[in-house]
Amino acid sequence: MAAAKALVVLSGGQDSTTCLYWAIARFGRDHVDTLTFDYGQRHRIELECAQQVARYARVFNTILPINTFAALSGNALTDAAVQVCTELNPQTLLPNTFVPGRNLIFLTFAAAYAYPRGIDHLVAGMAQTDYSGYPDCREDTLKALEQAIRLGMECKLELHTPLMFKSKKETVELARDLGALPAMAYTHTCYNGRQPPCGECSACLLRAKGFAEAGITDPLLERLRGISS
Amino acid sequence: MAAAKALVVLSGGQDSTTCLYWAIARFGRDHVDTLTFDYGQRHRIELECAQQVARYARVFNTILPINTFAALSGNALTDAAVQVCTELNPQTLLPNTFVPGRNLIFLTFAAAYAYPRGIDHLVAGMAQTDYSGYPDCREDTLKALEQAIRLGMECKLELHTPLMFKSKKETVELARDLGALPAMAYTHTCYNGRQPPCGECSACLLRAKGFAEAGITDPLLERLRGISS
Repeated sequence: MAAAKALVVLSGGQDSTTCLYWAIARFGRDHVDTLTFDYGQRHRIELECAQQVARYARVFNTILPINTFAALSGNALTDAAVQVCTELNPQTLLPNTFVPGRNLIFLTFAAAYAYPRGIDHLVAGMAQTDYSGYPDCREDTLKALEQAIRLGMECKLELHTPLMFKSKKETVELARDLGALPAMAYTHTCYNGRQPPCGECSACLLRAKGFAEAGITDPLLERLRGISS
Repeated sequence: MAAAKALVVLSGGQDSTTCLYWAIARFGRDHVDTLTFDYGQRHRIELECAQQVARYARVFNTILPINTFAALSGNALTDAAVQVCTELNPQTLLPNTFVPGRNLIFLTFAAAYAYPRGIDHLVAGMAQTDYSGYPDCREDTLKALEQAIRLGMECKLELHTPLMFKSKKETVELARDLGALPAMAYTHTCYNGRQPPCGECSACLLRAKGFAEAGITDPLLERLRGISS
């Protein structure tokens, strides 16, 4: 097996799947590994989708457990249980394991995974566009983190975020240009964890809007229609 | 209970205990919380010492689990198990859960713990002196991380590392000046996890050297002599 050069943080969603194909185009399929975090997400289907996408794209996938977010969110904390955060907005539909700065943790663990394997390129799907509420998705945050990782691990890690300034429409077009659309049939987006997707949550609506604006039928919906008919 | 202003990352060792008393002196006992990571360290005695030190100092202590380091070090990884890191130097006596950039993770989780509690000050015992091998203990690394956390969490977190440029002798003197010496009797340093400490590992030797140069008897040894006589 060829040595990996790039590691893609693969959530099983539309954006990270597009990033996977971006990495394959840039580094070659044999040089791309994928890493998925099992952090107690509300819907286990995300993990299954990540594995299915990796299998479809014929790249390695590693699932790395993180039990800390669930503990930070209020379970299993000793002593300070009463002090636990209550400020998260129920309107945002964030998973109950949402933790501020979560992407800083994901990327640092990804870098720690990459380091001993000699992998210098980290690829992740964060985007400033369409995600106004998440400061840990912004480029200045990620540039500062890249610097902290380079200094803290004495390495030359390069963090790539090819979707940073793209709209959902542009991301769909990029997926098309990279040949990533067939793999989209195995991705997961719905905040409610439903398959077929609920079509009503903000994530479903944003995804639908992107495909509609790009004039492309969502391969996931096409596949599910094929199954049900 | 008064709201905490500062969070001390407490490992149960000499340095973090000194930092705890530094924080108490600066912010007041009622405004200091402590956080300890249960990350699969080789010796559970570290956790017990952290709790004993916190109890002795009459401050809250929270233990936060992290199962990711053990997974990164080679256990429980799916698919990529064969690719696991073999480059760690057995000479360094690092725990088998050592992960490059580990302090980046500790401090980011500590910031995520602090954020919803309105805690703006993070205190940690990293030092450039005496720890030449650890790039994630250096000031430039931690400054970059502080910046990433501030941007990524949109907060004003201030990271304090009062021991950064102190020798072990100076740290012992600071502990004396802060009234932290009695609490030192409950700390743990030995790499071999022994109590009484083995006195032979590099951590024991470094600790002994610091106390000797400061002309102070190590309160831990004094306490243990008291128990055994």
